[in-house]
Amino acid sequence: MMLYTDLAEKLRGILASGGISPGERFVSVRALAQREGVSMPTAVAALRVLEGLGLIVARPRSGYFVAPQGGSGLAPTRIVPPSVPQDVSIEALALRLLSQREGIKVPFGAATPDASWMPQKALTQALQRGARRLSTQAIGYSYPPGDLALRTKLAYRFARGGTGLGPDEIIITAGATQALSLALRAVCRPGDVIGVESPCYFGVLLLAQQLGLSVIEILTDPVTGLDVASLAESCTRHRLSAVVASPRAQNPTGAVMPPQRRVELVALLEAAQIPLIEDDLYGDIQTGEAPNLPCKALDRSGLILHIGSISKTLAPGWRVGWIAPGRFYDRVLSLRYQDSLGGSRLLETALADFMTDGGYDRHLARFRARIGRSMEAIVARARGSFPPGTRLQIPPSGYLLWIELPPTVSALDVADRLSRENISVSPGPLFSPSGGFEHFLRLNCAIEPSASVLAALDRIGAICAQRASAAEKMG
Amino acid sequence: MMLYTDLAEKLRGILASGGISPGERFVSVRALAQREGVSMPTAVAALRVLEGLGLIVARPRSGYFVAPQGGSGLAPTRIVPPSVPQDVSIEALALRLLSQREGIKVPFGAATPDASWMPQKALTQALQRGARRLSTQAIGYSYPPGDLALRTKLAYRFARGGTGLGPDEIIITAGATQALSLALRAVCRPGDVIGVESPCYFGVLLLAQQLGLSVIEILTDPVTGLDVASLAESCTRHRLSAVVASPRAQNPTGAVMPPQRRVELVALLEAAQIPLIEDDLYGDIQTGEAPNLPCKALDRSGLILHIGSISKTLAPGWRVGWIAPGRFYDRVLSLRYQDSLGGSRLLETALADFMTDGGYDRHLARFRARIGRSMEAIVARARGSFPPGTRLQIPPSGYLLWIELPPTVSALDVADRLSRENISVSPGPLFSPSGGFEHFLRLNCAIEPSASVLAALDRIGAICAQRASAAEKMG
Repeated sequence: MMLYTDLAEKLRGILASGGISPGERFVSVRALAQREGVSMPTAVAALRVLEGLGLIVARPRSGYFVAPQGGSGLAPTRIVPPSVPQDVSIEALALRLLSQREGIKVPFGAATPDASWMPQKALTQALQRGARRLSTQAIGYSYPPGDLALRTKLAYRFARGGTGLGPDEIIITAGATQALSLALRAVCRPGDVIGVESPCYFGVLLLAQQLGLSVIEILTDPVTGLDVASLAESCTRHRLSAVVASPRAQNPTGAVMPPQRRVELVALLEAAQIPLIEDDLYGDIQTGEAPNLPCKALDRSGLILHIGSISKTLAPGWRVGWIAPGRFYDRVLSLRYQDSLGGSRLLETALADFMTDGGYDRHLARFRARIGRSMEAIVARARGSFPPGTRLQIPPSGYLLWIELPPTVSALDVADRLSRENISVSPGPLFSPSGGFEHFLRLNCAIEPSASVLAALDRIGAICAQRASAAEKMG
Repeated sequence: MMLYTDLAEKLRGILASGGISPGERFVSVRALAQREGVSMPTAVAALRVLEGLGLIVARPRSGYFVAPQGGSGLAPTRIVPPSVPQDVSIEALALRLLSQREGIKVPFGAATPDASWMPQKALTQALQRGARRLSTQAIGYSYPPGDLALRTKLAYRFARGGTGLGPDEIIITAGATQALSLALRAVCRPGDVIGVESPCYFGVLLLAQQLGLSVIEILTDPVTGLDVASLAESCTRHRLSAVVASPRAQNPTGAVMPPQRRVELVALLEAAQIPLIEDDLYGDIQTGEAPNLPCKALDRSGLILHIGSISKTLAPGWRVGWIAPGRFYDRVLSLRYQDSLGGSRLLETALADFMTDGGYDRHLARFRARIGRSMEAIVARARGSFPPGTRLQIPPSGYLLWIELPPTVSALDVADRLSRENISVSPGPLFSPSGGFEHFLRLNCAIEPSASVLAALDRIGAICAQRASAAEKMG
């Protein structure tokens, strides 16, 4: 069965070949679905990807047309990273940016969901029910591997998504950040080299720096994710202790690896006996079609350490995440004990309760719809306010918008300027050990597109435009 | 002003000199208070220490008498540790013991308070009020350094206890275990040597092993704590990156360092420019008189990293602790971000709320009274059930009972045997990198002394007695 990501890639190829001229009518949803033998939602999703990339434009009641060439009609650039391992020194930058987050009015910078979208009342009720049921045990530890009811719930959710995992293969953690730290410490030693996506989540880089690991950045396409051929080459030239990747929804680009590439990725790493740390934080926020399996579903030798959490979908402050560490179970369990003795029995019980009555799935459905609407509003506004030459990558999964500004604009400079107006954004260099991606921004789009949020977007666009035009005059 | 610990030491000296014969009447509370110019509670506390050591015995309506010599009338032995740094390899043992904790019926092993003694209802109400007040923010992160209201509350409590600390000198952590880990990582690098008490809290040893630190054990008296002269000697012979100690209530012995020794400790480490990691987890469970200052109160150069939490006094599962890291503030803050991004805004707010209305102090007063009653019942029962030659150290602070068994009894063997009856105890080797303290046990006494708990104590005593007599026959 063809997935929308595959279909979108195919259509991109057709457009790139120049077979259809700018301004010409593009294929309709119905025609596309029939021609390719896919469902209507798959066809819609594929067209949305192209629309997001600015390759086609929708005209009300008329359908899709090929976009005029040049301008913002392209996906962000694939940037080839250095081919040698690097030491990481991102800590000072990351801390400066993170410490600016308190007091921010418009949080485009933090990858956390709009609190007003979360089912606060249902969560409070789950806490109350949990406290009643646990009685005096509500103040107690949940010793590793964590609450059995919660692990059973998670195993059920994994099974439903196509991954067979028993409750006894899952360890509850203090959020995904701890899970990442546990995973890296379980498989690496100081001085080791790990492979990461380029760009990649800054938390991985911070941990690498702390643990004394070098990183080698692997070429990562903003649309199709980690480039397996590049990874294969790196594997032949360097001894990697682990690869960290987010195949189902990459942070910061929002890239989704096509399923066939995930198969290749797993096969490559299994052949080389390299552990894969699969950060699947946005795995519950898929807009595409099933089956959309995580790599963990393909894990035959226990080499994949799969990580999830509710921090991106429900309650960041509950600090509940999990890891299915495969053959590294014992080591991860031991480190989990050493890090924090255990978790909160009350919060774990309340979460299991919330997942049991179906509340989580209903919430996720509403959440995905809201993300879609918000993303649309933000992208539309951004197209009007950002300077010419800006490229957007609209993610089919998750809620992060990856933006390439004109090359003369410094994202760090823009971020500092905006923080004085209590607007946060995440600049590209945060996602690279080599300080690359200087003219990229990541925007959080799980945010209610209110008038003030859209006005903030105008400010971001205006500051970028001002910097771009200043640079032009200088040049 | 003389403290009860000083007074107890003075009286021990008098007894040791043989100035009073076994069986003879000892000084009365009133006479002691008058003679030494101390308050009645101080005199009582000092006499209780001697009683705990088995040096004197109380006879109803008759007062105190010097105990018959020999038998169990002595404090546990001061054991001189190896004088060279050692690698730690405690992980397998600790994990085996920790993983036995689930399913235990009588938890003498875990140093956590009886859940039924905790103000569950008031905590649930504080959570509900917090959820209401925070509204949608209740699901959010509390970014480091943590909730300002809570830090302000803690600063106020510090000030009341004689330690001047601003809210901006305190960082909220995920329990004290994370705080310890942050502290060690802030001041040590792999390969460094740290000084620890002998015996010491196993969590410190686990972290040392994980971080690749060697430890040198410092002679620690079961009554008066860390021996400053021994530490001074170690400092001249080895380069220590940090010393970890609990001067106000040691784990596992319950030792309390006399105030003058704390002054000497701080002066020594300041002169040598060695950071002191002051684990003050039991600082809120003092039965003695004020002023009983933590070392942090004497910190003039920011070299002391002071650690506290509510895990021993209120709600282990809330995972809220704190650290006042002195001059290492920036480094600890950075590591806290890297470890977990932040804490739970809801739990931190609820705790600040609970501390504000005085509920915490009322709870602590009741808690201390309960510990006193429970300790008394447990000690009385233990004196009847443990084999001859057993020595008990009854702690004036905290709730851990340190027991020296006859030298032929293996505490590990006893612990394994008991776990099959769903009774946990903590055997001595858990508290030593060198596997020492083979015939010592630590018992948690913050546990309701119900009939089944006392019966379990009889079982512990019987198994120890059986092992001792078997060894005698073998010999």
